Amino acid sequence: MSLQRDIAYFFRPRGIAIVGASKTPGKIGHEIVRNISLSGYPGGIYPVNPNSDSILGFKCYKSVGDIPSLVDLAVIVVPANLVENIVRDCVNKDIPAAIIITSGFSEIGNKDLEERILSIARSRLRIIGPNTFGIYCAKSKMNATFGPNNVLEGKTAFITQSGALGLALMDWTTEEKYGVSSIVSIGNKSDVDDADLVEFFSMEPSTKSILIYMEGLKDGRKFIEASEKAIRKKPIVVIKAGSSKRGAQAASSHTGSIAGQDTVFNAAFKQVGIMRAEGMTQAFDWMQAINENPVPLGEDLVIVTNGGGIGVLATDKCEALGLKIMDIPDDLSKELRVIIPSFGSVKNPIDLTANADDALYGKVLRILVKNRQVDGVLALFCQTANIDPILVAQVITDLREKEKLRKPITCAFIGGHLSQIAYSRMLEKKFAAYPTAERAVDGMYALISRYRQLRHPAGS
Amino acid sequence: MSLQRDIAYFFRPRGIAIVGASKTPGKIGHEIVRNISLSGYPGGIYPVNPNSDSILGFKCYKSVGDIPSLVDLAVIVVPANLVENIVRDCVNKDIPAAIIITSGFSEIGNKDLEERILSIARSRLRIIGPNTFGIYCAKSKMNATFGPNNVLEGKTAFITQSGALGLALMDWTTEEKYGVSSIVSIGNKSDVDDADLVEFFSMEPSTKSILIYMEGLKDGRKFIEASEKAIRKKPIVVIKAGSSKRGAQAASSHTGSIAGQDTVFNAAFKQVGIMRAEGMTQAFDWMQAINENPVPLGEDLVIVTNGGGIGVLATDKCEALGLKIMDIPDDLSKELRVIIPSFGSVKNPIDLTANADDALYGKVLRILVKNRQVDGVLALFCQTANIDPILVAQVITDLREKEKLRKPITCAFIGGHLSQIAYSRMLEKKFAAYPTAERAVDGMYALISRYRQLRHPAGS
Repeated sequence: MSLQRDIAYFFRPRGIAIVGASKTPGKIGHEIVRNISLSGYPGGIYPVNPNSDSILGFKCYKSVGDIPSLVDLAVIVVPANLVENIVRDCVNKDIPAAIIITSGFSEIGNKDLEERILSIARSRLRIIGPNTFGIYCAKSKMNATFGPNNVLEGKTAFITQSGALGLALMDWTTEEKYGVSSIVSIGNKSDVDDADLVEFFSMEPSTKSILIYMEGLKDGRKFIEASEKAIRKKPIVVIKAGSSKRGAQAASSHTGSIAGQDTVFNAAFKQVGIMRAEGMTQAFDWMQAINENPVPLGEDLVIVTNGGGIGVLATDKCEALGLKIMDIPDDLSKELRVIIPSFGSVKNPIDLTANADDALYGKVLRILVKNRQVDGVLALFCQTANIDPILVAQVITDLREKEKLRKPITCAFIGGHLSQIAYSRMLEKKFAAYPTAERAVDGMYALISRYRQLRHPAGS
Repeated sequence: MSLQRDIAYFFRPRGIAIVGASKTPGKIGHEIVRNISLSGYPGGIYPVNPNSDSILGFKCYKSVGDIPSLVDLAVIVVPANLVENIVRDCVNKDIPAAIIITSGFSEIGNKDLEERILSIARSRLRIIGPNTFGIYCAKSKMNATFGPNNVLEGKTAFITQSGALGLALMDWTTEEKYGVSSIVSIGNKSDVDDADLVEFFSMEPSTKSILIYMEGLKDGRKFIEASEKAIRKKPIVVIKAGSSKRGAQAASSHTGSIAGQDTVFNAAFKQVGIMRAEGMTQAFDWMQAINENPVPLGEDLVIVTNGGGIGVLATDKCEALGLKIMDIPDDLSKELRVIIPSFGSVKNPIDLTANADDALYGKVLRILVKNRQVDGVLALFCQTANIDPILVAQVITDLREKEKLRKPITCAFIGGHLSQIAYSRMLEKKFAAYPTAERAVDGMYALISRYRQLRHPAGS
């Protein structure tokens, strides 16, 4: 089997056995059946438990072997000492993929048991885990996790080595309106590892970008090679924990990972173009910008603002990050001067002043987006009494939706409740919008980084 | 008059004249009368306009000289060419303080007019502005601005050289639940400058910390000297725009400021202990931690988490910022081991694991807060199915409210809607809480910085 087909069974299974399913709400074996059912998964759902006849309305089987239908994925939640037998049952039924939720393996030093399971599975059954909370896949309407059931669909595949962080993030996606195409709790990486998933997601059509929370790697070379190939198609962002000495020690006791020398990771990431984010917010801010925009065609950026101070701060941050705030060419300057009042500035950052209304924002942005010398626009907005943030959001979304003008653009809506609403609407309409100017700059930084990656790929 | 008394007239006036008041909603001269009235200001409100008899129910006077009562503050909104005469009227009526809202002075090159006004006012009338949006003071229930009327009361005095940013921030305080004791739009700083306000706020009882958005300084030495004194009483955070070459140029065209050499600012700030924030969010995160906590008695910090990954990331960030994640002493380790399950970690970061409930959080935090060797606690929480964020918030607030245990503590609630509610409740109860671990670390960084400032003050 090819890796692509192998891994696809985890994300597009035609039938799922939940081994260790339970009638008792709150138990993991119950929550997983419930989530798979609630998420609208259209394939067969087969709870396995020798002591039940049915669970949540699904017929329950005594063993995996008793299931009369095709099963592509087994989700295993039985106690650790029973996992070995269940894996054998799965192999005997020709199930190609298993997620082992159960913990108590190499992460607590129980390496032998994990090795025995692998030797049973070898070459016939691919395993994610053990010690995971499962997999979510938006396109398959499959939430095979014991996490929340209201994950927001989006374009980023998220691979996490931390359980609690991944679970918290599932809720966070909905609250922050940052969607994901898939979430994989990768657990102990006994078999399927980051490299396999990077390769898979680089080909998976509903995924536009890949985010990994990583504490350590078993096979660094494999990961870097897979990333080098994948990055030509999709950007990869990594949150690598354990950069500090104490952090690395904690990571080691947490997942049994060897965090490795941080400088080695940094060098390898840089070489192939992996972006390393400081934390969740930065990672998703980057993803948002990349997912919702075309890749820029160059590095010439323009800042537009109605608040001079915000324009200055954004300019400072751009320069600190190595982003180029272009000189406005004469012809463009003249075109802008006609509509921008004399006390405003047509120099970059372009300052429309606090008197600006939504119509002026619209006119200026239209000119900038149409101008071939401009490669990207930062549209920054301070809420004042003169102007409704929601109308500003409207003129920006209209550019793309009504006038079909697409150019990289990141927006900031700074203010109170109305700004919050405007910002949320932008996210819903698939624009890269942020509540602060710093974050809009950070988003643009990701776009320019992506431009540079594609222009000068590793090894070229 | 002493500076303290001088400046106090702006913040605790016994009567306010609004010169250029208007009957027309939306006009600045109307909005200011409306805001002063709506904010519950208890002193006299005296609109001045030769063409009206009353405005918003307040008797309107033909001129400042016609007001029969005591006026401590004039808010001037007449066109620029009329300001000179109005200032003369104010001096003649012995008004000690004036805010000149009107723009069109030195910021557009009209320096002569500004100078003439100063020469009229000199030594008898102190001026804030021109080119400002006014002043808000929570304690006096005075919103003498044309901004929003629902500012959240808090402990930080905010001085801003940018109008739009300040106005947006007024809304932002309510949305983000970050209160302010005062907001001063400082405008062109023709008379009253940052140094005067720093000195004033360092003595003003409702202010616990001072935040300045600054584009440039006219008298750097005066500011640094004032700050050096003030910082012994209250921390000062500055957002200094114009660190980049282009940013400095833009700042110059925006407020007519000379931004100065950024390295000079940095050196001076460092010397006296001014903290320089990257933007609004960081500045308020720092303030929040300092405002709602006692100053630490030392640098030994402990991280508590239910998510191993978040604990590692926080540890990394602490180390990067020079914060000390202490080794847990044997006696404390033993005390914790009794209540923390064996698969959790009693090493720092302390990992309660995803199975932790609110009771365990409460027990562990109580032990840490009571322990004399621990100087500060970072309480990090990932939302999982096992535990309600609101209950976790409750056990943390109970420590202070019911058990009277006060020790520096910053919290992060990471997750979805319930985490958001828990985090908001913490803010309402005056705790330093954040939606991400990075920001909780940043808050603790501010507390440790404050400890170091007070331990090793400038010039000591």
